[in-house]
Amino acid sequence: MQYAAPITRLIKAFTGLPGIGEKTAARLALFVLNSKKGYAEEFAGALMAVKEQVSLCSVCMTFSDTDPCVICGDVTRDAAAVCVVSDYKDMVAMEAMAGYKGRYHILHGSLAPLKGVGPDEIRLAELLDRVGSGSVREVILATGFDAEGDATATYIAGLLQGRGTNITRIASGVPVGGSVEYMDGATLGRAMAGRKTV
Amino acid sequence: MQYAAPITRLIKAFTGLPGIGEKTAARLALFVLNSKKGYAEEFAGALMAVKEQVSLCSVCMTFSDTDPCVICGDVTRDAAAVCVVSDYKDMVAMEAMAGYKGRYHILHGSLAPLKGVGPDEIRLAELLDRVGSGSVREVILATGFDAEGDATATYIAGLLQGRGTNITRIASGVPVGGSVEYMDGATLGRAMAGRKTV
Repeated sequence: MQYAAPITRLIKAFTGLPGIGEKTAARLALFVLNSKKGYAEEFAGALMAVKEQVSLCSVCMTFSDTDPCVICGDVTRDAAAVCVVSDYKDMVAMEAMAGYKGRYHILHGSLAPLKGVGPDEIRLAELLDRVGSGSVREVILATGFDAEGDATATYIAGLLQGRGTNITRIASGVPVGGSVEYMDGATLGRAMAGRKTV
Repeated sequence: MQYAAPITRLIKAFTGLPGIGEKTAARLALFVLNSKKGYAEEFAGALMAVKEQVSLCSVCMTFSDTDPCVICGDVTRDAAAVCVVSDYKDMVAMEAMAGYKGRYHILHGSLAPLKGVGPDEIRLAELLDRVGSGSVREVILATGFDAEGDATATYIAGLLQGRGTNITRIASGVPVGGSVEYMDGATLGRAMAGRKTV
């Protein structure tokens, strides 16, 4: 006994998603089978729309259904400040903070030589073009503080050094709500090194 | 800041699935965004196919892309034995056992008066028709052993009593691998009542 072929096909599609195993995929496929036809149609339409209507903003490389994207097209935001992030999700998190009024540049990856991700595999050329145009006052490196994010920040800082653009890195330290007791030594070391007069 | 509209639309579609919250939905939508276009196309096609190609077998009411379904069309299986289950998934589990060579009837639900599920809301009329045709020798009640499954089995047994068809209920007791120590009293009571000479 197997599921009917179209059900097996849908289960297989669901298992392609991250964190969805065979059992969960079967549960989800049967849910779709039991749901109203309108739901499956809307779901299928949404899957196609996301691939057909979303592309990269030609300025900041973010995913957008307009070009330039909403942020690059917003004249009230400071075009001379560019926050560099590895990933679209990082930009969404930054925007959720709601305090930043500059623009972004999305690299779509971090340098990871061991995984075969070099400078040509991420959207670095586009960042250099933006900075090269002379309109950028500050590049804020907001890649992660893991090995790859740090390496990426260091590499970009090296490339942009001496071009008359201010290059900064977001702070590393104990997160808000974090207790010192449970912090690892590396984090405490960074927090100590980055201490400020109060 | 929000996600671009097509991304928000896809996130919303994912949150319609059981057990998928806002955060997981966003993760899955971004995965689709980053995946190859072929994957989204196949996924969308599978969603549509499951609704367009799968319907109920006119004999046993199972989900199938053929009518009769593979099992009802299999002449090597005993058409005179009908195993009644509440759900398509129950039939799949029974088939995984691979020992049963009769046919099935899928009710698509259990009687649950408090939830408004009465005899007319499940596929009971079709079962009565099958039994009424006189070709069924044994009806095996394999609904669950929770309150609803038990009530459904009892109700069906009452309906079919005295029609010349043998009506049986699958056994309830300690599952294989289960230790007596951790079994609840209701299970042990059933196991005791169903004891057999060895």
